Amino acid sequence: MKIGFIGLGKMGFNMASQLLERGHQLVVFDLLPSAMVRIAEAGAEAAASPAELCGSLPTPRIIWMMVPAGEPVDSTLEMLEPSLAPGDILIDGGNSRYLDSEERARRLAMKGIRFLDAGTSGGLDGARHGACLMVGGEKSAYEAVEPILKDLTVENGYGYMGPSGSGHFVKMVHNGIEYGMMQAMGEGFGLLEASRYGLDLEDVARVWSHGSVIRGWLMELACDAFSRDGSLSYLEGKVADSGEGRWTVESALQHEVSIPVIAASLFSRYRSRSDNTFSDRVVAALRHEFGGHSFTPPPAAEL
Amino acid sequence: MKIGFIGLGKMGFNMASQLLERGHQLVVFDLLPSAMVRIAEAGAEAAASPAELCGSLPTPRIIWMMVPAGEPVDSTLEMLEPSLAPGDILIDGGNSRYLDSEERARRLAMKGIRFLDAGTSGGLDGARHGACLMVGGEKSAYEAVEPILKDLTVENGYGYMGPSGSGHFVKMVHNGIEYGMMQAMGEGFGLLEASRYGLDLEDVARVWSHGSVIRGWLMELACDAFSRDGSLSYLEGKVADSGEGRWTVESALQHEVSIPVIAASLFSRYRSRSDNTFSDRVVAALRHEFGGHSFTPPPAAEL
Amino acid sequence: MKIGFIGLGKMGFNMASQLLERGHQLVVFDLLPSAMVRIAEAGAEAAASPAELCGSLPTPRIIWMMVPAGEPVDSTLEMLEPSLAPGDILIDGGNSRYLDSEERARRLAMKGIRFLDAGTSGGLDGARHGACLMVGGEKSAYEAVEPILKDLTVENGYGYMGPSGSGHFVKMVHNGIEYGMMQAMGEGFGLLEASRYGLDLEDVARVWSHGSVIRGWLMELACDAFSRDGSLSYLEGKVADSGEGRWTVESALQHEVSIPVIAASLFSRYRSRSDNTFSDRVVAALRHEFGGHSFTPPPAAEL
Amino acid sequence: MKIGFIGLGKMGFNMASQLLERGHQLVVFDLLPSAMVRIAEAGAEAAASPAELCGSLPTPRIIWMMVPAGEPVDSTLEMLEPSLAPGDILIDGGNSRYLDSEERARRLAMKGIRFLDAGTSGGLDGARHGACLMVGGEKSAYEAVEPILKDLTVENGYGYMGPSGSGHFVKMVHNGIEYGMMQAMGEGFGLLEASRYGLDLEDVARVWSHGSVIRGWLMELACDAFSRDGSLSYLEGKVADSGEGRWTVESALQHEVSIPVIAASLFSRYRSRSDNTFSDRVVAALRHEFGGHSFTPPPAAEL
Repeated sequence: MKIGFIGLGKMGFNMASQLLERGHQLVVFDLLPSAMVRIAEAGAEAAASPAELCGSLPTPRIIWMMVPAGEPVDSTLEMLEPSLAPGDILIDGGNSRYLDSEERARRLAMKGIRFLDAGTSGGLDGARHGACLMVGGEKSAYEAVEPILKDLTVENGYGYMGPSGSGHFVKMVHNGIEYGMMQAMGEGFGLLEASRYGLDLEDVARVWSHGSVIRGWLMELACDAFSRDGSLSYLEGKVADSGEGRWTVESALQHEVSIPVIAASLFSRYRSRSDNTFSDRVVAALRHEFGGHSFTPPPAAEL
Repeated sequence: MKIGFIGLGKMGFNMASQLLERGHQLVVFDLLPSAMVRIAEAGAEAAASPAELCGSLPTPRIIWMMVPAGEPVDSTLEMLEPSLAPGDILIDGGNSRYLDSEERARRLAMKGIRFLDAGTSGGLDGARHGACLMVGGEKSAYEAVEPILKDLTVENGYGYMGPSGSGHFVKMVHNGIEYGMMQAMGEGFGLLEASRYGLDLEDVARVWSHGSVIRGWLMELACDAFSRDGSLSYLEGKVADSGEGRWTVESALQHEVSIPVIAASLFSRYRSRSDNTFSDRVVAALRHEFGGHSFTPPPAAEL
Repeated sequence: MKIGFIGLGKMGFNMASQLLERGHQLVVFDLLPSAMVRIAEAGAEAAASPAELCGSLPTPRIIWMMVPAGEPVDSTLEMLEPSLAPGDILIDGGNSRYLDSEERARRLAMKGIRFLDAGTSGGLDGARHGACLMVGGEKSAYEAVEPILKDLTVENGYGYMGPSGSGHFVKMVHNGIEYGMMQAMGEGFGLLEASRYGLDLEDVARVWSHGSVIRGWLMELACDAFSRDGSLSYLEGKVADSGEGRWTVESALQHEVSIPVIAASLFSRYRSRSDNTFSDRVVAALRHEFGGHSFTPPPAAEL
Repeated sequence: MKIGFIGLGKMGFNMASQLLERGHQLVVFDLLPSAMVRIAEAGAEAAASPAELCGSLPTPRIIWMMVPAGEPVDSTLEMLEPSLAPGDILIDGGNSRYLDSEERARRLAMKGIRFLDAGTSGGLDGARHGACLMVGGEKSAYEAVEPILKDLTVENGYGYMGPSGSGHFVKMVHNGIEYGMMQAMGEGFGLLEASRYGLDLEDVARVWSHGSVIRGWLMELACDAFSRDGSLSYLEGKVADSGEGRWTVESALQHEVSIPVIAASLFSRYRSRSDNTFSDRVVAALRHEFGGHSFTPPPAAEL
């Protein structure tokens, strides 16, 4: 198929490469010319603007967006809309908030434009060689783009989730589960590392990756990570988070669903990024007040 | 090889079947004659007692034990010991506490008997068709039984972890991680189920099993579970726990390692098995005391 | 002082009674006539409408609102605004979301109306005999109403927190802490109750209320609750929550502050209100899938 | 009464001072002569050894021990036992593990010695001016020492909990609750500190200490702590823990009681004492592996 593709970041570039490899024709646009140059070398047609991109596509147009959540999606839509016509299909393959996707679909539907929210999982490797896609929106639009979904994913790796918003909702919860799984693994390896057995963690992760109950891609990645350096001394334990963990917690608050482990995983990430937290200082101060317990003075540099 | 095999429960029966299939000769013993009859039909030699089992094996003997943790392991050892000789190798493939395994290895070593602690993972299916084994103990004993380890596991699915106790320690932490992963999945699916999208959870689990970051065996099992009934109405949400989750928490207390998610997963299991907990009643009562908040009276049947 | 008072629910009625007792003149309004009749018996002047209430007050008017958070506050403001004049002071003593209070203050300031957000704590007893007030907004307005604040509270029990929103923000966090304290107490008493010592929990709470580190009002209330029935069999452990716990978690997400205990307390309340959760069923189902672990079938009535 | 008092650490010294002030006669012993000199100045009689202490007391002897939990209690008992006679009463007022106290009471009972386990709460101030005592053991022994209990505590601040072990068990759970309360407060003040309102936390703690639902001694101590420096910059947020939090978690594991908040509080303390945890590094490494997410390299000094 001939489709438009906007957004050539790490994920987008890999997905566009995958589509080209599978024989699709791409008209691409990105704010960074360098990314367009590289993908053009792989056979894509570069457009000077979203408008030009729209002009180069057969109608009804199919345009895949792979831009950061929030404002970037809105500004991309703003640039595209004047050039779109009823029947066109826009796919947001990024990590947008599901409530935003619902709203965008509703607004665009008034102009006859069909908006699909497609949650993408599988990391950079999946983006390049076969990802996983969870898609929400109008069923007919989903069916129209199914050949693309099929070519972007591994076998059985895509599906129609339901109405607008459901694709990004399922992806959001996917990430919430991911946070919990990663934290459970982090805690477990942390305990192994603290033991007196002198374990080879790469070896543990390798064995666990073959035949165990907890085998899976994350465990294979742990094996890769430990193979670089079993003590992980090449990085610091400061863990970033994207919006999806937070939205999962917010959504649980709204639905009154108890998700203690997913929330604790998110808070562990927050905690990892700060030292000498005020919260801990309060607890230390209270101990000192009632028990005269000695406390650690702040590092000299801070005095 | 010709080896002894004691304990033909669900896991043991499957492992013994696997060993027979791979060409090993087995002399088996179990307290339940019916299990022995069944495995004898598959080619094993049934022994009337542990002593008889020992008498039927070439020396140095290799005996695999697959009996429940705690007292059953001790009583099995007690029955075996009089018939064992220096150089014999005993393997505890069950879920024993690693501290117990350390102690047993130490004690048996004084008699020249080599004791290996082998944590087994992979569920019933793994036990039958290829499991995962984490083994601790004397390296020479490990090497002596390696052909058996290889035949019980999937490729790359076994390894030498370190000194006595380390095999069961690694298995214990494996289960701690497993608890956390399962709880994260439970919470995530719980949130999906609470949403208004009317999601097909089997379909979600299927898509997540192919290409996503959280793909793995547990997700495939979730798919199987939902395929029986997407609402899981065939069971109640009362989750048992074996000792390993508790030992993981105890071990973390001892090592002063923070494992909030694994601990929360264990407590969620405890919580799942009780209704109308005293803890919750205290909180409800406090709210009533200060705010005059109405409360739910107990069900009529309890009055 | 002569002030207006709108909202005669449990808290509002007690606070109005307290103000009358301390010699203030009140013009009151409530949607329920019965509450107005009762407070009129105690000396208040009942108004037929917010407009009439405004008409009966000297200017600049001081009006205390004690209505439920959310829509009720907005509709009360809508009814009042046409009758207000620049310089008037409105105090929202309820549990409004601090972001709403900020917005309302900003909007009313454009009309010259001064809006104070006053978080009220102390339960029904405090409302009647001396509460605690955390007040945000314009400092001059705070000073103008200070005699009222003083008469509604115990000694040292009120204070100026800062700009608009800060009063309700501090009250919100107060409730977050309250959730955590109550849950910690619930868990502790739950463990005492599970012990084999046959403890008299009223006696424990009484001792803990006198001289211990954890003495405080909540412990005294626990003593009262156990004095009704040490087994708390008069209620069910289903714990409601108002908005403030949720807003605390949302605010922590926004500020990237780790609050695992407060969040876990909120989730324990959610959990308390549901049985046989989907989350737990997923975990039970996964155990069954990999280990053939038996499960509890649902109660007959549900089949 | 004339009693023996062993252990003049911070708590013990204060309690001994309190007893002297209330007119009791004390024969004291401590391994550190300096503490004995100081208490002798206040009127106590110093003994050169536990044996001498026993020799100076009327029979049946009453001896209060205030020594650290674990080995120090055992070695004190060992030194005392040869000099004790049937009917003597030993009171362990320290933070011993309740299971140890049960065992000690059982052992000493065989010699006719009555052993009481008395959990002490109230901090240094309570120890000096009126503490809280939770006592377990034989009821007749409790009654015999009641005048001392009364003089060590505030009004209503002591009680008979039940059989041996129950005093220290109740004290242990008290500390578990304390951990949860302190952590909830820490989290709440942490969120206040992170807000943009520029709050005066001493003022907040002062207001919360008067009339609020969460008023209590800990809140008053928070007020004291903030009065030293509202930013708590005089200490680092590294929070120690004594054994009681751990034992509470272990006890909950044994009783299968869900205590997520108390456990999370303990783990927060562990976490506070470490930087750049292995657990967090694992999570950061996994993110990097699947998403190419950038990571923070370790500080230069560590390279």
